[in-house]
Amino acid sequence: MHITSEQRLDDGVLEREFTLGEIPGTLWTPGSPAPAPLILMAHNNGLPRRASRLVARARHCAASGYVVASIDTPGCGDRPRSAADEQARAALGRATQNGEPIDEILEPLVGSLVERAVPEWRTTLDALLALPETAGPVGYSGWTALGIHLTVAEPRVTAAGFFAGGHVPRAQREEARQVTIPLLLLLQWDDEGNPRQRALDLFDAFGTKEKTLHANLGGHTGTPWFEVEDGNRFFDRHLKK
Amino acid sequence: MHITSEQRLDDGVLEREFTLGEIPGTLWTPGSPAPAPLILMAHNNGLPRRASRLVARARHCAASGYVVASIDTPGCGDRPRSAADEQARAALGRATQNGEPIDEILEPLVGSLVERAVPEWRTTLDALLALPETAGPVGYSGWTALGIHLTVAEPRVTAAGFFAGGHVPRAQREEARQVTIPLLLLLQWDDEGNPRQRALDLFDAFGTKEKTLHANLGGHTGTPWFEVEDGNRFFDRHLKK
Repeated sequence: MHITSEQRLDDGVLEREFTLGEIPGTLWTPGSPAPAPLILMAHNNGLPRRASRLVARARHCAASGYVVASIDTPGCGDRPRSAADEQARAALGRATQNGEPIDEILEPLVGSLVERAVPEWRTTLDALLALPETAGPVGYSGWTALGIHLTVAEPRVTAAGFFAGGHVPRAQREEARQVTIPLLLLLQWDDEGNPRQRALDLFDAFGTKEKTLHANLGGHTGTPWFEVEDGNRFFDRHLKK
Repeated sequence: MHITSEQRLDDGVLEREFTLGEIPGTLWTPGSPAPAPLILMAHNNGLPRRASRLVARARHCAASGYVVASIDTPGCGDRPRSAADEQARAALGRATQNGEPIDEILEPLVGSLVERAVPEWRTTLDALLALPETAGPVGYSGWTALGIHLTVAEPRVTAAGFFAGGHVPRAQREEARQVTIPLLLLLQWDDEGNPRQRALDLFDAFGTKEKTLHANLGGHTGTPWFEVEDGNRFFDRHLKK
């Protein structure tokens, strides 16, 4: 892991850009020097790790006493896109603009992004756990489809907070019953792109005995800020006990 | 308001029994002497105010800096039951035991309890707000059907936390759209007596723009303790700002 830049934020959090082979990432560590539990944070559908909403969540989470990391996986953020990714994203853009169904475009696109992302997240996890700043256990926060595939594959992740859950590929919907770690699913009640009933069905399907659903009125980007704090408390219960 | 007994609890909370005319009640005040916001707390379907789960919630809420009050309204708790109440409760017991439908028994029973409860809660609110221990604003926590009818009638209640919501009389389902204060609806995902879809429909129906749903796996009495703390934080956001 090579640190390429760093800045100290007002609340003491250290924000560092890194590369790990081809993988670009950002690492946020709390101001206090003691090792802290680790949270892997990813945006739904592979939105860039530098997107402002993810950065705000990550900084707040680090200030609450976590090491937080996010990476851009193949086809996402700073990473080059394959011809197939470009075609799928262009088709998605057209369908969205024309108000046409997007399920059959999202299904292979997201499925492929998830398949390529999980090995890189696991490689990154190896590197992160070797840092002196991190102490187990490990949580995951964000992108639902990736989170399902990652937590089923990766026993080191012991608690997860997922967001939305309307567009999760069939393979991950099938895998949901294999998710047995404590879970917080956060959804927006009127999320135009994530049909509510699908998210509720997904919540129902998760195999874990310890799952909580939070829903708030409003559209996809309208999640109230207090849910960030609720998310931190969920991790506090499971990663800091 | 006549105080009939009092005890100081370990966490400094003062727990006092009172009567207000025919109304028996319990008042919990925090250890600190400063006036605190008030929370009215009621059990679903008029279960007694002395029931251990309500008492535990009330004590924790008072220790978090609230004046908390609960009363037994007509037909509930320590209060005498009318012949009609007795008949309805006996019919409910038989139907439950035999696994028969209970909707048509609960509908008039709960409707009647709610109708009789609201004027007494409003009288109690007058008395509570005259106490030196209380400072506005006022929240409501618990029994959904009562809470809907009370918050629609009573502008002094400015935030509400409701529990379950499967068996709410039609009149209160209709009224739900008139509830415009910030709201937290808490439900148990597998609540045997409160059909999930009805609770979700009720959440959808509330007229407020600021509503949050929390759901946890398990049956009616399985609500995890952290939801009590989440409930307090919801009130902190709205009553202590």
